[in-house]
Amino acid sequence: MARIVMKFGGTSVANLDRIRAVAAIVRREVDAGHSVAVVVSAMAGETNRLIELCEEAGPPAPALDARYVEHDAVVSTGEQVTSGLLALVLQNLGYRARSWQGWQIPLKTSSAHGRARISEIEDTMLGDAIDQGEVAVVSGFQGISPQGRIATLGRGGSDTSAVALAAAVKADRCDIYTDVDGVYTTDPRITKQARRIDRISYEEMLEMASVGAKVLQTRSVELAMAYKVPLRVLSSFDPPDAPGSGTLICDEEDIVEQNIVTAVTPDLNEATVTVHAIPDEPGRAAAIFTSLADAGVNIDMIVQSASREPGFANLSFTTKEADLDRAVEVLNGVKSEVGFNALQSDRNVAKISVIGVGMKSHAGVAATMFQTLANKGINIQNISTSEIKISVLIDSDAAEYAVRALHEAYGLDKAK
Amino acid sequence: MARIVMKFGGTSVANLDRIRAVAAIVRREVDAGHSVAVVVSAMAGETNRLIELCEEAGPPAPALDARYVEHDAVVSTGEQVTSGLLALVLQNLGYRARSWQGWQIPLKTSSAHGRARISEIEDTMLGDAIDQGEVAVVSGFQGISPQGRIATLGRGGSDTSAVALAAAVKADRCDIYTDVDGVYTTDPRITKQARRIDRISYEEMLEMASVGAKVLQTRSVELAMAYKVPLRVLSSFDPPDAPGSGTLICDEEDIVEQNIVTAVTPDLNEATVTVHAIPDEPGRAAAIFTSLADAGVNIDMIVQSASREPGFANLSFTTKEADLDRAVEVLNGVKSEVGFNALQSDRNVAKISVIGVGMKSHAGVAATMFQTLANKGINIQNISTSEIKISVLIDSDAAEYAVRALHEAYGLDKAK
Repeated sequence: MARIVMKFGGTSVANLDRIRAVAAIVRREVDAGHSVAVVVSAMAGETNRLIELCEEAGPPAPALDARYVEHDAVVSTGEQVTSGLLALVLQNLGYRARSWQGWQIPLKTSSAHGRARISEIEDTMLGDAIDQGEVAVVSGFQGISPQGRIATLGRGGSDTSAVALAAAVKADRCDIYTDVDGVYTTDPRITKQARRIDRISYEEMLEMASVGAKVLQTRSVELAMAYKVPLRVLSSFDPPDAPGSGTLICDEEDIVEQNIVTAVTPDLNEATVTVHAIPDEPGRAAAIFTSLADAGVNIDMIVQSASREPGFANLSFTTKEADLDRAVEVLNGVKSEVGFNALQSDRNVAKISVIGVGMKSHAGVAATMFQTLANKGINIQNISTSEIKISVLIDSDAAEYAVRALHEAYGLDKAK
Repeated sequence: MARIVMKFGGTSVANLDRIRAVAAIVRREVDAGHSVAVVVSAMAGETNRLIELCEEAGPPAPALDARYVEHDAVVSTGEQVTSGLLALVLQNLGYRARSWQGWQIPLKTSSAHGRARISEIEDTMLGDAIDQGEVAVVSGFQGISPQGRIATLGRGGSDTSAVALAAAVKADRCDIYTDVDGVYTTDPRITKQARRIDRISYEEMLEMASVGAKVLQTRSVELAMAYKVPLRVLSSFDPPDAPGSGTLICDEEDIVEQNIVTAVTPDLNEATVTVHAIPDEPGRAAAIFTSLADAGVNIDMIVQSASREPGFANLSFTTKEADLDRAVEVLNGVKSEVGFNALQSDRNVAKISVIGVGMKSHAGVAATMFQTLANKGINIQNISTSEIKISVLIDSDAAEYAVRALHEAYGLDKAK
C-alpha cells in the first residue's frame, strides 16, 4: 500500500463529465489499496472569470497596501468548487471522500498574496485521513497566510500544491494528470517523429521548463527535486481501464539507460535587442541590466562584441516577446545615462535548445548541433550553454526545420 | 458613533454595478463615523448555479451519511466571491475593508449541514477591526461546524447571519437592505392603497412571515426578538444621497402609536384536505397527524366536525400547496389503519390574515373581519386565531377582493 498524490488541472475537471472521468481514475488507485490525496485546479475558465470580476472591481487604492488580498479570497473559490464536486462524485460512487481547503489542512504560506510561497504543510490530519481510506480532495493553488487569510500561489500553483503535499505526506509518487500523455523528445506538432520520454531527470525537466516547454511549472519541479518526490506526468484523457504510463521525472541515478540528448526544445516567444555603440567603460552594462531588472524584464543570452568604432561595444540580449516593448521603453529612458548610439530589436527569432544530462560526460554534442545547422544552411545568431543544455538563437522561419534536423541528428526519432 | 450591521441580498449585489451601489450606501455610514459590518449574499443566480452543479454530481451514497457536507463547501463560495468583491470595491474607493468568511470570524454552527444553526459567534477580532475603522464584509449564510467544515444555514440564512452578528457585536441596529423599501400594510400588487409601515413589533413581523410575507426570514426575526436587535428593512435601490427610512422592527413598547390592526396578509399557496367519516375514537386523529409529521408535511388550521353518520367525524386541515400531493399520498397509505371513508382536497383556497398587537386589548377585531367579508358575500371556510392574528380560509378567487375590503375596513389605507 502506497501513499499517492494525484493532481488534475483545469481541462481535466472542466465539467461534471470530466470530473466523473477523474473520479474513475481516482477510484482505480483507491481500489488498488492505496492511500490517495487528489489536488484539483479550478474548472477550466473559472479562474479567468473570477479574475475578470476582480479586475472589474478595480485595484485597491495604493495607500491601503492590500493588493491581491481580496483577489485571493475571490479567485480561490474556483478550486473550492472543484474539490467539493469531486468529493461529491466520489461519495456518489460510494467512496469515502472529503474536500480540504488550504486553511483546513493547514497549508501555510507566506503573505505574498497572488504569488505566495508554501512555508509549511501539517500532514497529520490529512495523512491520517487518507490512511484510514478516505480520499482527500485538496483545493490546489492556495493556502493560509500568517494573518489567517487565504493566499494563492500564483498561476500553475496547483502543480506546486501537489508536489508540496506529496513531500509533506511522504508520498511514494506524485502523479500530475494533464491533457498530454507525457513529456516528449520535442514538440509533436513540429515532427511526428517526436516520442514520449519514459524517464527524465529533474535537471533536464527544469531546463525544458525554463526554455518554454509548458508541461510542468518550474517551481513544482524544483520542489520535487529538493524533496526527491518521484513525479509522473500522464493524461487524464486515457480510458481508466487502459491508462498510459506517462513520463516519470526522477533522480538522474534512477535512469538506467541514459541518453546523451533527451530532448530538442524550441521556444518561439523570444525577441532580441541589440544596443549599438556603448562607450566601453565600466558600469555601462550594469546600468543597462539594472534598469531592465528594476522594470521586471527577464533577460537571457547576453552577448557583448566590439563595435566598429574603437572604444565602443555592442550588446545583444534576448527577452520574452511579451517583454520586448517594455525593454525598449526602459532602454530609451536610460539612453543619455548609458550613452549608447542606437537600439535595434527583432521578434523574428527562435531559441532552439538541446537538453540532456549525458552532455556532462560526452564530448561533441555542441559540435553535432553546429554542424547539423550549418549543413542545413541555418545561421546561428547567438549561443548559450549550461551544464546540460545548449541553446542557439536562429531565425524563427528556420525553427521547425532546425528542430526536425536536430531531432534526427541526435537519434531521438529512433524507437528504443 | 454606533456599531451598525448592514445586510444586502442577492439582487442588491447581482453584478459589479450593483456592488458599487452597495459600496456607496456603506460608505455613507462609514463617513458618518460608524463602525460597520456588512453581511452579503451570493450574487443573484450564483447559489442556484452552484446547487445545480451539486445536483449534477448526485447525492452521496446513503451509507456515507455525508449529505450536504460537500454541498456546503461548494455553495458557500457564492458568498465568498461577493464579500471579496465588495471589499475590493471599498478598497478601490480608498476605504479600509476586508472580507470575513464564517471560519475566520469564527461563526460557529451546528453540524446540520445545509440547515445549520448558529451556536456561537466570537466577536472579539471582528468587533475590534470595525472599531478601528475597517469595514468588515462578512459572507452570509455560512459558518464553521464543530468538525471544522463549512456549514450553511439554509436558504435565507444571510438574514440570520446578519442578526446573529448584530447580537454578537451588540450592534445598535441591523439594517436589512433588499429590493423593497419596507414592510407594507398589505401586498402593494393587490391594492395601491397599501402603505409602508414605519414601525412594527417583532411579534407582528413573525406572524406576517409565518403567513407568507417574504420580506424577512422567520428565524432572523425570532433571533432579533430574542436579542432585542432593532431591525430595519430598507431598499438598496434608493439613491445613496436620498435614502428611505424603511420599516423598523422593534419591541412593542418602542411603538408609541399602536394600531389595532397593522397589516392584512394574503397567502395564496394554501390547499385544504378533508378526511371524511373517521371513526370517532381516541387515537384516530393522532394516527393521521403523526403520519403527516413523519413525512415532513406541515399542517395548519385544523377543524374537526361531526359527520352526518353518528359515531364518525370529518377532519379538515390546510397545508402548503407544494405539500398537498405528499399529504394525500401519506393519508391514502394509512387509510385502512385510520379507517376513514374518503379524502377530498382543494387547491383553490387562500388564507387571509389580519395582524396587529392592538388586538390583545381591543375587542371587535374579529367581528369587523367577519362582517366585512359577509357584506361582500365572501364565504369563510375555516378560521384560526392567535393572540395577535386572525386568519380565515376563503375561495382563492375572492382573495384580492377580500384583501382590499379588509384593508379599507381597518382604516389601513388612511395616511397617518
